[in-house]
Amino acid sequence: MKKSLLALAILSTASAYADEGMWMPQQLPQVAKQLKAAGLKLDPSTLTKLTEFPMSAIVSLGGCSASFVSPQGLVVTNHHCVYNSVAQNSRPERDLLANGFVAHNLGEELPAAPGSRVYVTKEVLNVTDKIITPEVAKLTGKARSDAIEKNQKTLVAACEKDEGHRCTVSSFYGGLEFYQIKQLEIRDVRLVHAPPAGVGKFGGDTDNWMWPRHTGDYGFYRAYVSKDGKAADYSKDNVPYQSKSFLKLAKEGVKEGDFVMVLGYPGRTNRHRLPSEVAFTFDWNYPAFVQASADNLAIIDRETKDNKDSALKYAGQVASINNYYKNRQGMIDSYAGSDFLKRKTAQHEELKAWVNADARRKAEFAADIEKVEHLITERDAKVKKEFNLSYGQPRLLNTARTLYRLANESQKPNVDRKAGYQERDLPRIKSSVANLVRTYDPKVDKALASHHLKAYLAQPAAEQDAAFNAALGLKPGMSEAELSAALDKLYAGSKMGDAAVRDAWVGKSVADFKASDDAFIKAAVAMYDAAMKEEAEEEELSGKLQQAYGNYMKAKIAFMKTKGQAVYPDANSTLRVTFGKIAGRPWGADGTTWTAFTTVKGVAAKATGTGEFNAPKAQLDAIKAKDFGKYVDPKLGTVPVNFLATLDITGGNSGSAALNAKGELVGLAFDGTLDSIISDWDFNNANTRDIQVDLRYMLWNMKHIDKADNLLKEMGAE
Amino acid sequence: MKKSLLALAILSTASAYADEGMWMPQQLPQVAKQLKAAGLKLDPSTLTKLTEFPMSAIVSLGGCSASFVSPQGLVVTNHHCVYNSVAQNSRPERDLLANGFVAHNLGEELPAAPGSRVYVTKEVLNVTDKIITPEVAKLTGKARSDAIEKNQKTLVAACEKDEGHRCTVSSFYGGLEFYQIKQLEIRDVRLVHAPPAGVGKFGGDTDNWMWPRHTGDYGFYRAYVSKDGKAADYSKDNVPYQSKSFLKLAKEGVKEGDFVMVLGYPGRTNRHRLPSEVAFTFDWNYPAFVQASADNLAIIDRETKDNKDSALKYAGQVASINNYYKNRQGMIDSYAGSDFLKRKTAQHEELKAWVNADARRKAEFAADIEKVEHLITERDAKVKKEFNLSYGQPRLLNTARTLYRLANESQKPNVDRKAGYQERDLPRIKSSVANLVRTYDPKVDKALASHHLKAYLAQPAAEQDAAFNAALGLKPGMSEAELSAALDKLYAGSKMGDAAVRDAWVGKSVADFKASDDAFIKAAVAMYDAAMKEEAEEEELSGKLQQAYGNYMKAKIAFMKTKGQAVYPDANSTLRVTFGKIAGRPWGADGTTWTAFTTVKGVAAKATGTGEFNAPKAQLDAIKAKDFGKYVDPKLGTVPVNFLATLDITGGNSGSAALNAKGELVGLAFDGTLDSIISDWDFNNANTRDIQVDLRYMLWNMKHIDKADNLLKEMGAE
Repeated sequence: MKKSLLALAILSTASAYADEGMWMPQQLPQVAKQLKAAGLKLDPSTLTKLTEFPMSAIVSLGGCSASFVSPQGLVVTNHHCVYNSVAQNSRPERDLLANGFVAHNLGEELPAAPGSRVYVTKEVLNVTDKIITPEVAKLTGKARSDAIEKNQKTLVAACEKDEGHRCTVSSFYGGLEFYQIKQLEIRDVRLVHAPPAGVGKFGGDTDNWMWPRHTGDYGFYRAYVSKDGKAADYSKDNVPYQSKSFLKLAKEGVKEGDFVMVLGYPGRTNRHRLPSEVAFTFDWNYPAFVQASADNLAIIDRETKDNKDSALKYAGQVASINNYYKNRQGMIDSYAGSDFLKRKTAQHEELKAWVNADARRKAEFAADIEKVEHLITERDAKVKKEFNLSYGQPRLLNTARTLYRLANESQKPNVDRKAGYQERDLPRIKSSVANLVRTYDPKVDKALASHHLKAYLAQPAAEQDAAFNAALGLKPGMSEAELSAALDKLYAGSKMGDAAVRDAWVGKSVADFKASDDAFIKAAVAMYDAAMKEEAEEEELSGKLQQAYGNYMKAKIAFMKTKGQAVYPDANSTLRVTFGKIAGRPWGADGTTWTAFTTVKGVAAKATGTGEFNAPKAQLDAIKAKDFGKYVDPKLGTVPVNFLATLDITGGNSGSAALNAKGELVGLAFDGTLDSIISDWDFNNANTRDIQVDLRYMLWNMKHIDKADNLLKEMGAE
Repeated sequence: MKKSLLALAILSTASAYADEGMWMPQQLPQVAKQLKAAGLKLDPSTLTKLTEFPMSAIVSLGGCSASFVSPQGLVVTNHHCVYNSVAQNSRPERDLLANGFVAHNLGEELPAAPGSRVYVTKEVLNVTDKIITPEVAKLTGKARSDAIEKNQKTLVAACEKDEGHRCTVSSFYGGLEFYQIKQLEIRDVRLVHAPPAGVGKFGGDTDNWMWPRHTGDYGFYRAYVSKDGKAADYSKDNVPYQSKSFLKLAKEGVKEGDFVMVLGYPGRTNRHRLPSEVAFTFDWNYPAFVQASADNLAIIDRETKDNKDSALKYAGQVASINNYYKNRQGMIDSYAGSDFLKRKTAQHEELKAWVNADARRKAEFAADIEKVEHLITERDAKVKKEFNLSYGQPRLLNTARTLYRLANESQKPNVDRKAGYQERDLPRIKSSVANLVRTYDPKVDKALASHHLKAYLAQPAAEQDAAFNAALGLKPGMSEAELSAALDKLYAGSKMGDAAVRDAWVGKSVADFKASDDAFIKAAVAMYDAAMKEEAEEEELSGKLQQAYGNYMKAKIAFMKTKGQAVYPDANSTLRVTFGKIAGRPWGADGTTWTAFTTVKGVAAKATGTGEFNAPKAQLDAIKAKDFGKYVDPKLGTVPVNFLATLDITGGNSGSAALNAKGELVGLAFDGTLDSIISDWDFNNANTRDIQVDLRYMLWNMKHIDKADNLLKEMGAE
């Protein structure tokens, strides 16, 4: 049968080079042979050099990936990564989301959403020895947590003496290793171009995580720095950032079977987790998350449907909730039909048997593996208990609590302040507070809080947060009417809804907070002591976990080495490289297979003229008239839209550059497919496909529909 | 590229034997070589013998095809072919449509819908010489029409002397040839089994004409005859009909690439039409039909949505309208993107050039080819003019007109009566009148008539039917309120809505009709003379067309012979054989291909627990539990549901037996795919796929879900 033969063909090709693997750039020499075999024409060692082409062109937006594509700081990423910036520049009478936006010159560019950043990775250093010093190694619990945090802060402070840079010390392999990452933090970011939502979000939530797909998920920012080339706040005197290198557009289109690699910042995977973590996640945590997301979507829809201004404010949040909702549900569905937990358990038992088979190994690892199991159980109970409350806190209360914490921390010398509340964190906190004005509506917020607090108040009294209840005037088992009255009183008693008032609280003193009669501020102050006690308990657990988990991972890596398997760390928002090839899949929806490419034919077929499939008329006219210019694929006979590849990506990779064998840009990764996203936990080479928007579709839209000729010229596409 | 390679493979195999062709059984020796090459294991000459296996098992239901599958008259066909019988046996409190129905013994069987028939073809004779005698050949216009009708009636009368048989003289090749078909007309037909609509109509109108498909489109009747084996009206003394042969179930399932042939009664194709007919159909007629269908669906939905009884009455009509609506729209869409008219015109010009290149050919054909063009223009104008009125006639008015015509014709000797109003037609007319009670609701009917009459009354006065207007009290350009009042008066002034009153009018005299003051009867009488005049004009046109069209076809056949191309006649509801192979398609919806089979996995994936995708819980449980018994396909690893094949079928083929190379039953044809149904006009070997329900899916449902063990045993499946 055709199906079986194709499946075989794919599998046998796949075995020639692994598609699983989010490699740290410095690990690439370990897989140089595979990279060459897969078809890479560049010297693999090129990819280890962060300050040279092409790696120096690859940037993070914090949550999304992106790349420089011109000598003038032009940044390409996904439409959904610039979505908030488009939404926040939209007004009912000037709907940039619906109509798209092109800046035809630098002067027409718009400020990106407050807090938007472009992070350029400059250096990655292994600092494990400086974090887990011999002294730290002897500690446990909170003392260990504190010591690790102190060492991290010390390293970060030293690193950030280089002005305009942001440094991070990240944990790899579950706390076994630590790396210091130094990034230039560009904070003057401007919106340059986004296609209409009917292109950039074509298919909406219906098509999200699906194939066949026809989404033009691209958009452009520009990074600005001061005249002397330093990161700086917005200023009209700033100039476009000139990166050390930028990506060049492929002159030739890709085709099925071609080598492709994706360079970006994947957020989080869970491939090294324990069986108990798998069970808790899929049996309790993800289902609860899915339910809460569905509830929130329904509430936001209900509360904003007659208010376009409010709907625009929540558009970004709705997109994000929908995205994770479908993602988690997809994983739950895949998990339900799989033997993943069984395999995971068997692998874990095998590891333990290997540890116990040797006295030295047993002495080194056995106790910690036992310990980590207990600590995970403890952590899970906590998550369950706090779940409803985590969804039920009014957003302005959260803001008040953050700012009061900041006031408390600010009393200490900078170096002793809690991570996240140091001087270096001030700009981020400020912009986050400033950002609220465009994404917050008290009516919606109260409805959301009310819904989840109702569930929270139905928990046994012992499972509730007494300080929270006291501060907000809540009581276990109180009626819905009483809850509603308490919330009304709270919201009515605060002026934090006023942006100017809110902004003014940033940096105020502890005394100012204590003297305030603003309801949210008062609640934040009232909850403070209990929250500090809670945090200390968490740090106790965290310190124990770091030690035991790190040692468990050490055992696992050693065990996998005995099997000849190299280990890449789980994703943690740091720069990674994944490579594979462009490929369809011999099974899709029952009765179909997936081809590697979709085309504009499918855009026309799906277009309904409204809602999620509202392709612009100009685009449909161009498709009908076959006005394809040079962007037609010779084999497909039309313009390709999206393509599948065997790459290992996850959330955070959105906007990542997809490069061909010569390192030229051929598209942008933007999604996975619903039945393969469980790969975040359980990678399956045969099943997993990610989705890219084809560069030719981007350029065709920009040239033939949106008339962004200035950008095409800047990127050398003309 | 994978896609191109597959396309090549399919095409190269396809060229080995044609899949286009609805062959008359007697033509099969002409394609014996191709049949053998395709894999047929039977001797092709076997298929020419109508009274032997397997052809004697293949029956018509009038509009659907079916087959005997037991020695006891058990007939298998599509669910949508027994749909009306299920609907008419359904009551709000006993919803057989929703729940399905199994007769566990003969006594539990239910009467099929009134007028249900099983036609067993006994003989097919070429009678062209007896219809177009030398005398007829000299005639034209109405005289020719009348003479042809007279010769047809004479042949039919002689043939039907064999009691219980129905004979037809059918036109082939556009009136060039005539065949007399003699069929046993079994009129005691009983409903034996239909799965729940959630299986038999799974996917509803959403999936209709689509792939991937998961519809269990099967159902069972039983044919009964008198104790002496003659066709007879329903009687409890009747016994199951014992056919000369019946189909045996394949023991082994089919797989991709297998030979398959479909035996049935395709209704109508238009592959030999002229360019002007193509243009009129696709530019005007089909679009108008689609609009009228959409209007009718909306009206029926609106008028029945709060009335389950009424909704059940119209369920069959809704299914039928939806079916044709989607079909015609699909053809319009395919036409819009095609060069069909251009090719057709070029072919026609080529034919004319060939005719004109030779003096003898020119003398024989040229004038008639010109003539046929003019006559078609005349016919098209008439169709346009009468379009709205054809949709706007109240159904009881139509019934009254039919019965008054019958009264008039009954005054003549039987042999002189108009075809359709002879003694042989009485049972059909009676049952059609009796059938109304279960499919008619005056509220719905008036809403439908009112809608289309509004459009009719907006036509220029000269384009309206004066006799119709006078009889109903309508006036060109009258207001909607006036129209509504006129219709109210009409419906209120008639007792024809009463089934007993209606039935009593069958067979009454002209004088009885003239004396009636029933509003519909009066209108029928008032319209009679003008209708007769209209009919005479139509016969004038028809006589001219038959002569000219027949000669045009003669030219075309001769021309095609010079190119070495054999010609099968367009479908005309007579028995045909088409053969090909089971095959997916290398393109489906953009970004996908089609595999040859769907499976129960897809049923579970599509199931929503409601509406069109309401798979029964018992079935979903069985899928989940993998309770597949022996019906699992070894390669697919589960139960196959539907499969695609390269067969040439059309409406009327519904319910046709799909047989393997040994002539064993492997499934039932039930649909085409939307993007290939333009094949009715313009066959495309690469694109065209038809859809079968797999025998294994039928048997699995019957065994594991519906517990129809008695039927499985009867068919030898156990």
